[in-house]
Amino acid sequence: MDLSHRKVNKRLHFSDGNGNPLAEKEVHVKQTNHSFLFGCGAFDFMPYLMKKDEEFTTLTEYWLDLFNYGTLPFYWGRFEPEEGQPQTEMLMKTAEYLKSKNVTVKGHPLCWHTVCADWLMKYDNETIMKKQLERIDREVTGFKGVIDMWDVINEVVIMPIFDKYDNAITRICKEKGRVALIKEVFEKAHECNPDATLLLNDFNTSINYEILIDGCLNAGVPISAIGIQSHQHQGYWGAEKLNDVLERFSRFNLPIHFTENTLISGELMAPHIVDLNDWQVDDWPSTPEGEARQCKEVEEMYRILFAHPLVEAITSWDYKDGAWLNAPSGFVRRDKTPKPSHAMLKKLIKNEWWTDTSVRTDSNGFASIKAMKGSYVLESEGKCANAELVDDSEAVIVL
Amino acid sequence: MDLSHRKVNKRLHFSDGNGNPLAEKEVHVKQTNHSFLFGCGAFDFMPYLMKKDEEFTTLTEYWLDLFNYGTLPFYWGRFEPEEGQPQTEMLMKTAEYLKSKNVTVKGHPLCWHTVCADWLMKYDNETIMKKQLERIDREVTGFKGVIDMWDVINEVVIMPIFDKYDNAITRICKEKGRVALIKEVFEKAHECNPDATLLLNDFNTSINYEILIDGCLNAGVPISAIGIQSHQHQGYWGAEKLNDVLERFSRFNLPIHFTENTLISGELMAPHIVDLNDWQVDDWPSTPEGEARQCKEVEEMYRILFAHPLVEAITSWDYKDGAWLNAPSGFVRRDKTPKPSHAMLKKLIKNEWWTDTSVRTDSNGFASIKAMKGSYVLESEGKCANAELVDDSEAVIVL
Repeated sequence: MDLSHRKVNKRLHFSDGNGNPLAEKEVHVKQTNHSFLFGCGAFDFMPYLMKKDEEFTTLTEYWLDLFNYGTLPFYWGRFEPEEGQPQTEMLMKTAEYLKSKNVTVKGHPLCWHTVCADWLMKYDNETIMKKQLERIDREVTGFKGVIDMWDVINEVVIMPIFDKYDNAITRICKEKGRVALIKEVFEKAHECNPDATLLLNDFNTSINYEILIDGCLNAGVPISAIGIQSHQHQGYWGAEKLNDVLERFSRFNLPIHFTENTLISGELMAPHIVDLNDWQVDDWPSTPEGEARQCKEVEEMYRILFAHPLVEAITSWDYKDGAWLNAPSGFVRRDKTPKPSHAMLKKLIKNEWWTDTSVRTDSNGFASIKAMKGSYVLESEGKCANAELVDDSEAVIVL
Repeated sequence: MDLSHRKVNKRLHFSDGNGNPLAEKEVHVKQTNHSFLFGCGAFDFMPYLMKKDEEFTTLTEYWLDLFNYGTLPFYWGRFEPEEGQPQTEMLMKTAEYLKSKNVTVKGHPLCWHTVCADWLMKYDNETIMKKQLERIDREVTGFKGVIDMWDVINEVVIMPIFDKYDNAITRICKEKGRVALIKEVFEKAHECNPDATLLLNDFNTSINYEILIDGCLNAGVPISAIGIQSHQHQGYWGAEKLNDVLERFSRFNLPIHFTENTLISGELMAPHIVDLNDWQVDDWPSTPEGEARQCKEVEEMYRILFAHPLVEAITSWDYKDGAWLNAPSGFVRRDKTPKPSHAMLKKLIKNEWWTDTSVRTDSNGFASIKAMKGSYVLESEGKCANAELVDDSEAVIVL
């Protein structure tokens, strides 16, 4: 697969602090981070940080070894179970910790009909909408600089026709219509943080979602990236469906984020289940055959997505088995031992797609570097400099 | 069913030419047309007018006895089979004739991937789009005053993914996206005739079409009315589906036109057929049981639609059996004899929903009239005046 879009081919000029070229020197080019966002749910960081629970230490260290991008939960019903009592402190502490570890953090989601705050339902629609926009202002403004990436609104295709239970967000979506609601929440988020990456996110990958995005873009909604969920509890999509989805959603020429990816290492969920939440089991074991299958599927899927020029992020939903739906959906088992998929992903992210090399400068101090886009330490004779190698433009490095 | 939205309750003041009130006079209130558009395909008028073919005389007279609204074909591939040779004269003659009979005419369609002009395919996409807009200008400007109602674009939900055969319109829709193409063709039509009624038309009544309309309206597309096709060759939708569709498409608060209605009086088309055009039969007879069923379905459907406040038009697609798909889809049989549905529809349109009454003016020349919205002749003692009774505002009638 062609990965040229993931790489730089860059001419660097090395000099010392006095402006003299560093001629004929060996330079160690050591990658420290990817430009590409390799993500995972980072919910597990919250108990670690809040309760100082040592059980999570190993888990989060493994996590940080693999990922540079984490999703934190902002479900309104859990974030603010009682009106006026948001869990801001816990989320801020977790986000700041992740940021200190060079992890990009995304908040998920600002508007959704599921896990919504029940107390909203006592208000009329106009008040619900007002509170929704205030909530966006509070989170997006409050976390600015720590969280600059948001799933602004989630699963809008189904939002106004969702009928499993009454909720405040379905009510306002039904009244306003999908595109008008999307427009309002995006405009508010954009106003509060004009530099933020703002995602529309959905599990629906049919033409419904295509038409919705098309309408939003023509209506001027400031969508930064298209979020695609891919919970595959009922079986891996396979390369054909994956390529079809990529082709169809590439038409908008926007970055694509795979926001919620699940590939399980146990028995598949029955195909007749429509809402995955309807599958509730006490026990859902990870099996050796399942783990081998998961490893193969993770490899194929990440390879296809990494090769696609518009894909900028892949987030696996669960790091550890037994989270959402009690599924064997993690890279580590319930006992925290890593599965084969963990080693496979590490091999891809930190080896095959990772640059650790040396170059030699010429007599004028120039060297050309081919490297994966990302953050680097450049080192020569005990002196080093940080550098972002993200494009092909020539640059000067002072060592 | 409540039909108050179809009626006026109007106070009229009758006076003579000198301004004297016509006191204590009997006035005959005689409806001559409906405000509601009772329509039908009017393709059969073309051979009548062009070839002076007397075979069509009876047929068109029956037609005019029932309908006040006709659809004329502007399929690009037939309207302009060779580039630069449009059938303008034939269409203009037919449209003018219908207009002279107080029939509102709609042109169908200005942009569609089916029955498209093959010669367009030799051009690049930019040129195809240019020719599409020029075509809209030519027809909408050229027929202005005679045809002021257009199905601007047809079946856009499927347009960019239509893959039965290559065609110029699918190409441009795929490139531009649905909403952008809709916006361009509507804006051109609106620019050419700002007073025209402009329809988006589709057979898809799923949430795909809802989301498409939602996107278009938020993007500022000047849609005057939502067009819904209802070709029921595979069986009558029934009241439940009909009411569901009405409820879902009412959300936009735009007029709704049932643009292409078919209820057949023969054996139903097999349910596995997805594209109705795939069902091609040599013989598809109308049967006595089928005709009884069709009559019942026509009655129920027209009653439901006429009772809905947002519905402004119902067009039955075929007047005579054996037209599209060779189906027994008409109000008259192949031998031109009317079916029970013909009598039923006439009873509804020209009797039950028709006003022919008398009122008596008071001592000051006033009379209150309850009447179906429409055109009227008001007559008293040999003198008469035309009047449009379309709202409840008081008016003066000079006899």
